[in-house]
Amino acid sequence: MEALSKNKVKFINSLKIKKYRSKNNAFVAEGEKIILDIIKSNAQLLTLLSSDISFLELAIFKGVEKFKISAQEMRKISSLKTVTSSLAIFQMPEKIEFRPTQNNSATIFCDGIQNPGNLGTIIRTADWFGIQNIVCSNKSADLYNPKTIQSTMGAITRVNISYQDSSTFFEHLQQENISSFGAFLYGETIYDIKFPKSAVLVIGNEGKGISKEVEKYITKKITIPKFGNKAESLNAAIAAGIIMSEYKRQF
Amino acid sequence: MEALSKNKVKFINSLKIKKYRSKNNAFVAEGEKIILDIIKSNAQLLTLLSSDISFLELAIFKGVEKFKISAQEMRKISSLKTVTSSLAIFQMPEKIEFRPTQNNSATIFCDGIQNPGNLGTIIRTADWFGIQNIVCSNKSADLYNPKTIQSTMGAITRVNISYQDSSTFFEHLQQENISSFGAFLYGETIYDIKFPKSAVLVIGNEGKGISKEVEKYITKKITIPKFGNKAESLNAAIAAGIIMSEYKRQF
Repeated sequence: MEALSKNKVKFINSLKIKKYRSKNNAFVAEGEKIILDIIKSNAQLLTLLSSDISFLELAIFKGVEKFKISAQEMRKISSLKTVTSSLAIFQMPEKIEFRPTQNNSATIFCDGIQNPGNLGTIIRTADWFGIQNIVCSNKSADLYNPKTIQSTMGAITRVNISYQDSSTFFEHLQQENISSFGAFLYGETIYDIKFPKSAVLVIGNEGKGISKEVEKYITKKITIPKFGNKAESLNAAIAAGIIMSEYKRQF
Repeated sequence: MEALSKNKVKFINSLKIKKYRSKNNAFVAEGEKIILDIIKSNAQLLTLLSSDISFLELAIFKGVEKFKISAQEMRKISSLKTVTSSLAIFQMPEKIEFRPTQNNSATIFCDGIQNPGNLGTIIRTADWFGIQNIVCSNKSADLYNPKTIQSTMGAITRVNISYQDSSTFFEHLQQENISSFGAFLYGETIYDIKFPKSAVLVIGNEGKGISKEVEKYITKKITIPKFGNKAESLNAAIAAGIIMSEYKRQF
């Protein structure tokens, strides 16, 4: 095993920024569990760094570029508040542009979710509910942001996520006659909604809600009833979780 | 208006730590909207700092210790990633140890919620659903942590939150014959549960779930059904949101 060069550290740090992730077609994941989870999916491991020699020596990592580093070095390159012992660089898997059909179960559409923690939590919740397809508008947070990856808690490897142009996606829905349900402050209460199996569930931006561009395509405006009189909004991931739960109780 | 002294900066920074918040019986809130929200509740404003002179000069702040500071100074003392123009120090309001009765609506019990963002989101969601009382075990995250305050989005001022000894709280529930519902991985599906109006909804710790100490008191173990086969858990605030929604759809 070689020593970690300054250039390698620079490269890892550059992957904290979306521009360099795209340019290099690579992303970083931290923590032994999530690294093993991602290996089980279709992402290729490029480089492994760890302060734990027994982890580095696992048979599964044979032939991979590896570095034994100190806990102190790890603190310098980690994006996490609670630093783990291992960090891996993966090649980004090929993107599959999912297009729903009437035969599919629900699809989540994230219309400009900005907070990577919220996006990751939505992915984690979709995985819990067995909702396999998530489509994000191009303005949404990046899937490979370290905070998104961390808050998916491994679900990133089990759910199909793609970034698509909103208009193209919703025009496809119209052609296929697939209904979309968008969360608004004033809509029909979710407790009365009967969802079709192939429903598209649309979650808006944290501050601005669903965009004008997407709103015009929404088949049905739905609302999580508010019982207080002062609250202004729900957290976007909480709203997504409640809507997914309402959908799943019907199927 | 005087200039901001080094001692004042030191004092504000000390309030980022729970020990010093308790010692000084004071906490910090950032952002003009949340500062105005907290003033409307029963917390007393002690000191106001702002880079916005028109905010400092609002009639409501007459007689309060005020400092006009630069955006650069604000960046140095802020706990937020996206720095706002104003920061306030408040006196902690007196704590009211809420004890549910059969006449109350639901109460949320947080059994060791550790992440301040999760605690704040639970408070924000309870406010949305008109659930007015939250009790936290003494091991839960601090209400006055800047991240908790921020993620409540103002709900901190509209919900009654107290920290109590778990055993004392649950023994009171037994005496009053009030049922508690705890989220476990294996329990009765929440979609089949009929909640009594005075239900106590118990949310466990992010990693460990509901503690042994609290588990023995739980009247009914409930579960949010899992539809995938790989997911290990839901985010604690998401689980809380789904359970609150299930409770509210019945009342």
